[in-house]
Amino acid sequence: MKIIAYADGDQIALGVVTSPTHFLAIADIAPDLPTTLIAILEQEDGLARLRQAALGRNGAHLLANVTLKPFLERPNAIWALALNFKSHIAETGLQTSLEFPHLFMRTAASYVGGNEPIIAPPEAIARAFDYEGELGVVIGKPGRFIPVERAMEHVAGYTCINEGSVREYQMHNRQFGLGKNFEASGSYGPWLMTGDEFGDPATHSVLTRVNGVVRQRAPLDDMLLDVAKVVSYLSQGYRLRPGDFIAMGTPGALKPQADDKEGQDLSRQYGPFPTPGLVHMRPGDCVEVEIDGLGVLRNPVVADTSYAG
Amino acid sequence: MKIIAYADGDQIALGVVTSPTHFLAIADIAPDLPTTLIAILEQEDGLARLRQAALGRNGAHLLANVTLKPFLERPNAIWALALNFKSHIAETGLQTSLEFPHLFMRTAASYVGGNEPIIAPPEAIARAFDYEGELGVVIGKPGRFIPVERAMEHVAGYTCINEGSVREYQMHNRQFGLGKNFEASGSYGPWLMTGDEFGDPATHSVLTRVNGVVRQRAPLDDMLLDVAKVVSYLSQGYRLRPGDFIAMGTPGALKPQADDKEGQDLSRQYGPFPTPGLVHMRPGDCVEVEIDGLGVLRNPVVADTSYAG
Repeated sequence: MKIIAYADGDQIALGVVTSPTHFLAIADIAPDLPTTLIAILEQEDGLARLRQAALGRNGAHLLANVTLKPFLERPNAIWALALNFKSHIAETGLQTSLEFPHLFMRTAASYVGGNEPIIAPPEAIARAFDYEGELGVVIGKPGRFIPVERAMEHVAGYTCINEGSVREYQMHNRQFGLGKNFEASGSYGPWLMTGDEFGDPATHSVLTRVNGVVRQRAPLDDMLLDVAKVVSYLSQGYRLRPGDFIAMGTPGALKPQADDKEGQDLSRQYGPFPTPGLVHMRPGDCVEVEIDGLGVLRNPVVADTSYAG
Repeated sequence: MKIIAYADGDQIALGVVTSPTHFLAIADIAPDLPTTLIAILEQEDGLARLRQAALGRNGAHLLANVTLKPFLERPNAIWALALNFKSHIAETGLQTSLEFPHLFMRTAASYVGGNEPIIAPPEAIARAFDYEGELGVVIGKPGRFIPVERAMEHVAGYTCINEGSVREYQMHNRQFGLGKNFEASGSYGPWLMTGDEFGDPATHSVLTRVNGVVRQRAPLDDMLLDVAKVVSYLSQGYRLRPGDFIAMGTPGALKPQADDKEGQDLSRQYGPFPTPGLVHMRPGDCVEVEIDGLGVLRNPVVADTSYAG
């Protein structure tokens, strides 16, 4: 099952995607269910009731007619992993624990939904604004002290993430802080795909395109610490809540092809990491994060027009 | 004005404190206002309407009869500053930028309210569980690119924080991550005091007591970066939201007095920082954070009984 959130006037509505083009409005098919995804996940049988209500129905609404929104309004936690792909560790030259996840957090306000514009920071204050294609994990079943071998039972589903990062601010101090939390600097979506439909994350791969050119491509089994290990680790500290969200980390950038002039132009590469390929997002770009078998998260990048200088 | 949240059956209700012993229920005096503090702050005249409704009334309810709860349910952001007091920088021997705040984040689930129990992690997984007495800042008026000299206009008020920290987990990797986010490991309260009543933070001081013994005491003007600078900095990255919360950092621990046997017993000091005094919280302790002119945040510490080993 694929669940979307979308703009319905000034409200956020939920839907179930039934085909490449159509979806069902949850308010139509299951009016007794709560109106937010987190509240549905908080009901032990929430996803099962939704699946039952959608069974055999054809979508009445066109995906092309709606603006997708982030489907988790304000979860208790948005975790993100630094340096969890071996190729990204190699390209940055940074060190990380091989035993414990390298965890920081993001705010809800730092993300937009599938097809909403991502906002590039004003060039006057930051230029190293980088894409990071990632797998997103959404917790369904709450739990504490979850053993690794039972961790996947606590996952409701998965999504694509562009974990957009402002490197200058990330490097202002030792904790990443604001550099990972610029307004609308990242995105996730296009939908939550439930775990039964997605299957084992390790059998999938993630890919990032900028203006159609592939800039990242990695199998998800290249992670240093996999989904089960990270879920289990987090549950040592606190009782995981339905809707808690984990960005599993990004792979390294690919080397540009011989005919890729833009990718080879390092004069326009800013920031602390000497990477072999283009890593930035700029106004006018179209950035896509695709996870095979899940879908494509596609966002235009726009300039921040709120900056007066 | 002092605003509390408290348990009312399985709901959270709001109140206005009118004396050292009594409060008014907001649902009684201003039934038209929203039922969460963040929603009240989101209304431009929310606090003004509340002040008007409470004017001249005597509290009908006893503070002693209610359990205080965190007054911000799930704000967009809970920021916390590392190494923002010169005395704490000195005791840890760590480095930090003198120009940019050292920012990480906490979850709502990591905090309890005034007089609720703080949960110490199971000793089998962590023993360096430390208090951190701090000033908390709550954003009222939204804004982006706020100059330092106008930053205080965006602050709704202040509170006391015990930013309880699990040092072993904090040191698992370079980002603090889970070590700052154990279940119910910190607290804030007892109330939000509005800025007009609190005045200039730099004229106040913060103090932490464990079982009645003063363990931290520092003027708030010992901060490396003050409230206005931090609010302005954060607004460079994103539009501050009503309810956004900032823990301003903790001062160093005091050296124990000559007659303080427990404080001088370093055989019970765990963790990475060689401190001159007792920094831990243990089950059975009573920990208080007091900010003069604001109030006392008092929490018992209890063992985590959910751990099966």
